[in-house]
Amino acid sequence: MRISLLGGTGDIGEALALRWAYDTHHEVVIGSRDPERARTKAEEYETELRSRDVDRKVTGFANGMAADRGDVVVLAVPPYQVAELVESVAEKLSDTVLVSPAVGMSRDEEGLHYNPPDVGSVTQLVDAVAPEGVPVVGAFHALSADRLANLDLAVDIDTVLVGDDPDAKDQVARLTTDIEGVRPLDGGGLANAPEVEAMTPLLVNLGTYNDGLHDAGVKFQ
Amino acid sequence: MRISLLGGTGDIGEALALRWAYDTHHEVVIGSRDPERARTKAEEYETELRSRDVDRKVTGFANGMAADRGDVVVLAVPPYQVAELVESVAEKLSDTVLVSPAVGMSRDEEGLHYNPPDVGSVTQLVDAVAPEGVPVVGAFHALSADRLANLDLAVDIDTVLVGDDPDAKDQVARLTTDIEGVRPLDGGGLANAPEVEAMTPLLVNLGTYNDGLHDAGVKFQ
Repeated sequence: MRISLLGGTGDIGEALALRWAYDTHHEVVIGSRDPERARTKAEEYETELRSRDVDRKVTGFANGMAADRGDVVVLAVPPYQVAELVESVAEKLSDTVLVSPAVGMSRDEEGLHYNPPDVGSVTQLVDAVAPEGVPVVGAFHALSADRLANLDLAVDIDTVLVGDDPDAKDQVARLTTDIEGVRPLDGGGLANAPEVEAMTPLLVNLGTYNDGLHDAGVKFQ
Repeated sequence: MRISLLGGTGDIGEALALRWAYDTHHEVVIGSRDPERARTKAEEYETELRSRDVDRKVTGFANGMAADRGDVVVLAVPPYQVAELVESVAEKLSDTVLVSPAVGMSRDEEGLHYNPPDVGSVTQLVDAVAPEGVPVVGAFHALSADRLANLDLAVDIDTVLVGDDPDAKDQVARLTTDIEGVRPLDGGGLANAPEVEAMTPLLVNLGTYNDGLHDAGVKFQ
């Protein structure tokens, strides 16, 4: 499977790229607006993996080319860039599953708050702008990028997947299972995305107010 | 400490009453609109505890008398009854901490959705209608009543507390810690209540879509 991480030079993109490259044999492709930056980061990830005796090829391209190459395309960009990104690569998305991990949040003095777009969630926004027939799966919202990017740390966390296309959701669930210590759970359809996304500000707030929960994940049991 | 569970004849009231009576020496008081029903349920709880060789007094009263007696008063009623309940017992609430576990939800074909009142959350609604100087703490939202009420089951779950009064929040945290296997986490101020409450429909949806997660709880780690 070829996984393209658009915005794969950012925190969550880096974390997923490293884990997929480290734990699996899927091909990892980094996309960025700036192809040079994508290549530089891809090389950094390769160097990080080589330091752990893992020799893996990670490639970097402009977002459009990365999207074109991906069987699964992860939109690892901030929420306010998601719609524009999907539109900019729309014609490259055939036979592709789009994965949306972004969450809209706002901050006040108490902490972070869930602040979704009018359509209800970023995942549903992606679905609204995705080309006809391209399935969208919401996933990887409540994963701490810092924790995941540190390959020295074992993780034992859940991530909830939502989507209206069962095959696409299964495909993303398998890619999730392939990362050691991350369990995919089925959250139902895209209409259930808001409650899934709202866990991200909650996790950040718990990290703020409780010792030892910085970069915490969630486990349902 | 005397804990009054208004609406303590319902599912979450029963679960908390049984656990506090079973695990602690706090005095447990059941409130109901119908005092006779409160007394009947209180006797049922005593019988359940005696069957486990625990001899504890649980008393039942009309909500107003139960509120009057409580050091801590838990509003264990459905969300649409919360404001009316608080107003109906307002003059009994002095030197009392109010605890709000209710969550507003709506259902569509995909599952349950978070559906808070306009003020942002049920917890904040309670704060809006509570008498001046009575602190409000949101807690116990994501606990499965069925699982908690079954004293045969060991639990290992978290509950997130929100509140603007640190002393009141500490008091509820201590009462939470007293229940074996339930860990209180600090979610910050009342403004953070929506993200905490939104976990409840998520948990129900996960139970719907995943084997073995019916009545699941959540653990942050």
